[in-house]
Amino acid sequence: MNDIFENKSLTNLKSIGEFGLIDRLTDNISLRHERSLCGVGDDAAIIDAGENVQVISTDMLVEGIHFDMHYAPLKHVGYKAIAVNLSDIAAMNARPEQVLVSIAVSSRYSVEALEELYDGMKLCCERYGVDIVGGDTSASMSGLVISVTVIGYAPKNKVVKRSTAQEHDLVCVSGDLGGAYMGLLILEREKQVFLENPSVQPELEGCDYILERQLKPEPRLDIIGMLAEKNILPTSMIDISDGLSSDMLHICHQSHKGCRLYEDKIPIDNQTYDMAMDFAITPSVAALNGGEDYELLFTIAQPDYDKIKNDIAVSVIGYITAENEGCSLITKDDKLITLQAQGWNAYEK
Amino acid sequence: MNDIFENKSLTNLKSIGEFGLIDRLTDNISLRHERSLCGVGDDAAIIDAGENVQVISTDMLVEGIHFDMHYAPLKHVGYKAIAVNLSDIAAMNARPEQVLVSIAVSSRYSVEALEELYDGMKLCCERYGVDIVGGDTSASMSGLVISVTVIGYAPKNKVVKRSTAQEHDLVCVSGDLGGAYMGLLILEREKQVFLENPSVQPELEGCDYILERQLKPEPRLDIIGMLAEKNILPTSMIDISDGLSSDMLHICHQSHKGCRLYEDKIPIDNQTYDMAMDFAITPSVAALNGGEDYELLFTIAQPDYDKIKNDIAVSVIGYITAENEGCSLITKDDKLITLQAQGWNAYEK
Repeated sequence: MNDIFENKSLTNLKSIGEFGLIDRLTDNISLRHERSLCGVGDDAAIIDAGENVQVISTDMLVEGIHFDMHYAPLKHVGYKAIAVNLSDIAAMNARPEQVLVSIAVSSRYSVEALEELYDGMKLCCERYGVDIVGGDTSASMSGLVISVTVIGYAPKNKVVKRSTAQEHDLVCVSGDLGGAYMGLLILEREKQVFLENPSVQPELEGCDYILERQLKPEPRLDIIGMLAEKNILPTSMIDISDGLSSDMLHICHQSHKGCRLYEDKIPIDNQTYDMAMDFAITPSVAALNGGEDYELLFTIAQPDYDKIKNDIAVSVIGYITAENEGCSLITKDDKLITLQAQGWNAYEK
Repeated sequence: MNDIFENKSLTNLKSIGEFGLIDRLTDNISLRHERSLCGVGDDAAIIDAGENVQVISTDMLVEGIHFDMHYAPLKHVGYKAIAVNLSDIAAMNARPEQVLVSIAVSSRYSVEALEELYDGMKLCCERYGVDIVGGDTSASMSGLVISVTVIGYAPKNKVVKRSTAQEHDLVCVSGDLGGAYMGLLILEREKQVFLENPSVQPELEGCDYILERQLKPEPRLDIIGMLAEKNILPTSMIDISDGLSSDMLHICHQSHKGCRLYEDKIPIDNQTYDMAMDFAITPSVAALNGGEDYELLFTIAQPDYDKIKNDIAVSVIGYITAENEGCSLITKDDKLITLQAQGWNAYEK
């Protein structure tokens, strides 16, 4: 019988991390169907659909890894499971239309609890006009696992990949960053307090914005609409799930380019700023390395700058350079720091 | 904080089973996009793709529920994860083209173990000409969860649903039934022997066929090809994942029809037959109630009978009746027994 868990000479998952693992597993995959336009390596796969392309993405959320039943209401978990998938479609400059939802769940969950989960999913689908067309339900040995696959569409010449940023392009980001991470820190702090003394009420006053950033993120489909309206086609795009640093590096590596970002241009909300100071964290570090903001990070050609410069939903935070100039951040005190992928390594937990 | 696990007045998952749960969760779902032709309730969702339809299905496999690391080699687990999804596409009379693969895995798995899993997936994809175009990897708290989404295509007028069987149609099944279930019983028996005394070699001689039925099923895409070649369009179709009884009832209920099946027509392999006798199980009961054979169960109009009657890969096992005649089996000793959905209730485990 199997001894795959016994052999100590095998490679530990922690040693190569999520992206290393993906590289190893998808190394020799080639595409044979004409319709398979683009496979592993972007926010979504691209499939030929006549005049349009179809973009398809899938994400798994695991209890205890991506959400914690101590503080995440199931309705929010459901909403977020859909929202993060829609965000992948937005990152391709496409519009989501259908989702398939699979859950594996242990029998300690009640039917009512799962209805609450689905209510959250349905709410997010309704808000963004998406159809739930299929799925699967299964038992699990422990906890809840949610897998969502989302299908979106874009005209063939409007789909935007990570790999097409050009030198001198401007780097833009929507909304503000670091909030979801600060929300997580608050929730983790209050969970510890609760576990020590369940009668203490959680201290969440004045944290509503950052809690919502963590528990109920919104896909920035409004930004996709705004870009279309202003006739701006980004030259590359990704959604920020792992943190600004890590996701900027994805664009740069896949485009074979470098970048300069300016610390003082990174958009940070006041609540995020204040809470970071409370936790003795430099706010821009929360923005660079905290994940799950689900904002859009994209590059535009310089002639498009005038169309966007007065839009308060978008900040220009830097520019694209040649690859040999590397990827770096200019700090507020004018130091040059190399960007590092300090995003989430799931296997470190 | 959350108390969803404390309230005893809530509905237990076991009390409503998998299909009851799906009904509750998908109750008020409506479709808004023109492209969303058919949603929850068949083997796959149907999406408009111009001249063709696209069919999309998703399935989750959970360690300890769908596979057991004590006896399932990871390469086979990977192969089966893809095969069962391709089977859903075959059940729509369509051809699979793309898959997306997500895994959640605990850090006790090595990179090499996951490469073995992916080797199995790639082998099945290669065999059936399918592209791996995307996916997700994530950590899990315990064990391995695999979620596969598969995309297939069929000409618009060739896609076959569960809900369109007609009175007097003939009920056909491909291959033979009950083997996967008997294979499972053998593996469970040898696992117990192994757990009691790890030095005992498993007794698997003469079981190769039924073990392969359980560990490495094949999607019957050859049958889809044969039907097209003979110009037969089934009037309804499903793949047998839950057992002949349960899946026949899906066709009947969704078509608002009844059926008569004949026990002596149910195809059973000799190895399945012999092993069932060893276990003191009536072989046809293994075929009716054992799941995971992944054969195709379909109905054809009577005029098509001549085209298929000499095909050894297909057995005609009964016919469709009016709904009020119910769904029943004529036993070898000419008794009429009502078919019951004794398929798999995941939450009973």
